[in-house]
Amino acid sequence: MASIVLLTAKQTAQTRAKRCLGPRLKGLAGAGGPSGTFLPGKEWLSSGFSLRFMSHGASGRSAAGATSRGALAFSGAAAVTAAAAAVVGFLANSNHFQRAEMATKIPGHAKKNPEKEDEGSIAERCRGFMSVPVTDISVLERRKDEMSTRMEMLIMETQADFCKALEKVDGGTFKVDKWERKEGGGGISCVMQDGKVFEKAGVNVSVVSGYLTEEAAKQMRSRGKVLKGKDGKLPFCAMGVSSVIHPKNPHIPTVHFNYRYFEIEEEDGSKQWWFGGGTDLTPVYIDKEDAFHFHNTLKEACDKHHPKYYADFKKWCDRYFYVRHRGETRGIGGIFFDDLDAPDREEVFDFVKSCARTVVPCYLPIVKKHLNDSFTQEEKDWQQVRRGRYVEFNLVYDRGVKFGLATPGSRIESILMSLPLTARWEYMHEPAKGSREAEMLEALRNPKEWV
Amino acid sequence: MASIVLLTAKQTAQTRAKRCLGPRLKGLAGAGGPSGTFLPGKEWLSSGFSLRFMSHGASGRSAAGATSRGALAFSGAAAVTAAAAAVVGFLANSNHFQRAEMATKIPGHAKKNPEKEDEGSIAERCRGFMSVPVTDISVLERRKDEMSTRMEMLIMETQADFCKALEKVDGGTFKVDKWERKEGGGGISCVMQDGKVFEKAGVNVSVVSGYLTEEAAKQMRSRGKVLKGKDGKLPFCAMGVSSVIHPKNPHIPTVHFNYRYFEIEEEDGSKQWWFGGGTDLTPVYIDKEDAFHFHNTLKEACDKHHPKYYADFKKWCDRYFYVRHRGETRGIGGIFFDDLDAPDREEVFDFVKSCARTVVPCYLPIVKKHLNDSFTQEEKDWQQVRRGRYVEFNLVYDRGVKFGLATPGSRIESILMSLPLTARWEYMHEPAKGSREAEMLEALRNPKEWV
Repeated sequence: MASIVLLTAKQTAQTRAKRCLGPRLKGLAGAGGPSGTFLPGKEWLSSGFSLRFMSHGASGRSAAGATSRGALAFSGAAAVTAAAAAVVGFLANSNHFQRAEMATKIPGHAKKNPEKEDEGSIAERCRGFMSVPVTDISVLERRKDEMSTRMEMLIMETQADFCKALEKVDGGTFKVDKWERKEGGGGISCVMQDGKVFEKAGVNVSVVSGYLTEEAAKQMRSRGKVLKGKDGKLPFCAMGVSSVIHPKNPHIPTVHFNYRYFEIEEEDGSKQWWFGGGTDLTPVYIDKEDAFHFHNTLKEACDKHHPKYYADFKKWCDRYFYVRHRGETRGIGGIFFDDLDAPDREEVFDFVKSCARTVVPCYLPIVKKHLNDSFTQEEKDWQQVRRGRYVEFNLVYDRGVKFGLATPGSRIESILMSLPLTARWEYMHEPAKGSREAEMLEALRNPKEWV
Repeated sequence: MASIVLLTAKQTAQTRAKRCLGPRLKGLAGAGGPSGTFLPGKEWLSSGFSLRFMSHGASGRSAAGATSRGALAFSGAAAVTAAAAAVVGFLANSNHFQRAEMATKIPGHAKKNPEKEDEGSIAERCRGFMSVPVTDISVLERRKDEMSTRMEMLIMETQADFCKALEKVDGGTFKVDKWERKEGGGGISCVMQDGKVFEKAGVNVSVVSGYLTEEAAKQMRSRGKVLKGKDGKLPFCAMGVSSVIHPKNPHIPTVHFNYRYFEIEEEDGSKQWWFGGGTDLTPVYIDKEDAFHFHNTLKEACDKHHPKYYADFKKWCDRYFYVRHRGETRGIGGIFFDDLDAPDREEVFDFVKSCARTVVPCYLPIVKKHLNDSFTQEEKDWQQVRRGRYVEFNLVYDRGVKFGLATPGSRIESILMSLPLTARWEYMHEPAKGSREAEMLEALRNPKEWV
């Protein structure tokens, strides 16, 4: 099976790196990282951030700049398996690199609902997954307290929970492909196509490692990261889960999510790390109750960790999933964040865990509610036109897809898994005034607050 | 109606330029141009050219370099109306600019079948067009001997001939949109959608003028052109016809063509000019007789003008229409050329005229032959998968489309008119060995000689 060869874009990736579990990880969080530079309290989302991300709609160009804030803001349709895409991000767009200072510890803001610790041994938990993990179970067992292990377990668990929930509602079965990447790591692609409920459903996991290319390191440095490699080498590991679900019934929205983790080891053994991710909804028709449910579920997950996460990551989402040439967002958004490396790794991981565990409760109730909705051919056609826009976003703007396609050796089928089974382009299509199609367009042209 | 605003990409386009008809045009051909630098006889297609264009398939990256030879090698799906896309080319990709020395006069190689002069007055000829031309008929009459007028008449005639031939075979009618560009010029878009034979058929004309932006001029200079503007201003005009036809029946191939002309006026009133274009076929199944007919008709048109045109422009076409991430050409090719400015303008125009007048005889016999072919759902599905690849090429690689989408104010509906009405993406689709689908793929993976 083909493998994703992300770091060989410049043919400079070298030998297989050690797995990202370093001996010096303990005590890193909050120490070697740049958290000391973050702005305090309410200002953590600085005006600089606002200027960069709140300019949506001012003009095509500025919106473009806004949506492509950093080369890591790539995940989009993120069918390049998420973690791999994080690597991709480094290489993709040097011009747009800039350090975003995303979060800081809020004094006195204690976690109200810390996620409970995962129960059971590694081996027990693995039995519930769609496949054996990318990393050997014995290695995971040995390094069970390290973040890369905990994150790999989380993404495998997220994949399994989501796939099983979809299989249950559809009656179909996911096709599971486990693939290896020769430079290190691999992935697990789960795809269900032409099911009873789902036209195309894909849920990917990837766990990759290797050495950063010189170009990638240079671009990361231009973002403000200080990276000193040992003999010029910078071992990294990246992992993530990503998914796009296209249902058949036009009253069931498309959903996309992506959660990922990145680690780079420096000369002295210290590590840079960060998380990214998001979940967003693309309905064909506006259902305010669905929109409220989806956004409110995300907001509740966010609110447990930071009072500004939801509002700011919701805005970021609207900016990122913007089909500039149409002047429309791809869908009604959700949350999107990247480069999150503060206040400390434990807290960010807890936040990412909350988000990942929110995927099923965000989406499945909406699927079930509309499962038996009847629809007309006109409604199906409108869905197909919206699918065409989805294709436009993914092929024209999505950073992960673009870079993946440009990278020799990429696993194209995993990258383009995010495309719908069917789509439609009508010349000069414009819904009638006052129609439900026009109502949908209006929400895409002027993103709304749903909560 | 929206207008294509190509030169305002950098917001520097200024006032409307005079129409491209300059008073000093006579005697320019072969004088002010760079034809003196062209290589003689058999070597006109130099080894440098060969190195650049014959590397297809060696690797993803080198193929990319090969297919994107110059920023003018953009026309591809060229739904950005062709001439406009020529302007687009300037702005799109400075890195790839390089002067190609395309043609030279072959001593003693007389034209065997010069195209007969066009008959009838301008006004009479205009009556057969799909719309009044972009330029006022009175202006065309006054400047009837100038190349810009002759080319505008040719592209209008090509649009009308092709649209009428398609209407006759389909029974449907083209929707005609005439649009204006506020900086100068405009276009005529003809689209027939969901007809009896054609799922989507678009034939665009555009005639645009203005001043080159500084960036565009700089990029042109980097290709070897010497451009001295008057007070820093370089008036240009560009025009072309482009078309993409997607039939319903999977046994009728998709066709694309594009013919365009570009002129830039320098300080002393002298002009740089060149032509570009091509016609290519994208079948769903291989029909060797069709492939022979299509290529042979093009070859006969080429052979009237230069013994190497067909062979070299056929290769160029295969290189340009290459879906790199799939390792497949978009279709079975045809011809593609750009930057053609030698041996002299009259001869190049004659060649372009031969090509443009070959569109109907290239394609219509194939349409008529398969008009009543029956097909299965499997054959239709395979067509839809191939349509997906067509979308991938047009959104990911086509230079004109990419730049058009990135340019605020572009007429998006004309740019994306080239996309099919419907398309399909199947995960891990691979035709069975020995099937007709596999035979098609084999021809796309290893371009063949059809004549």
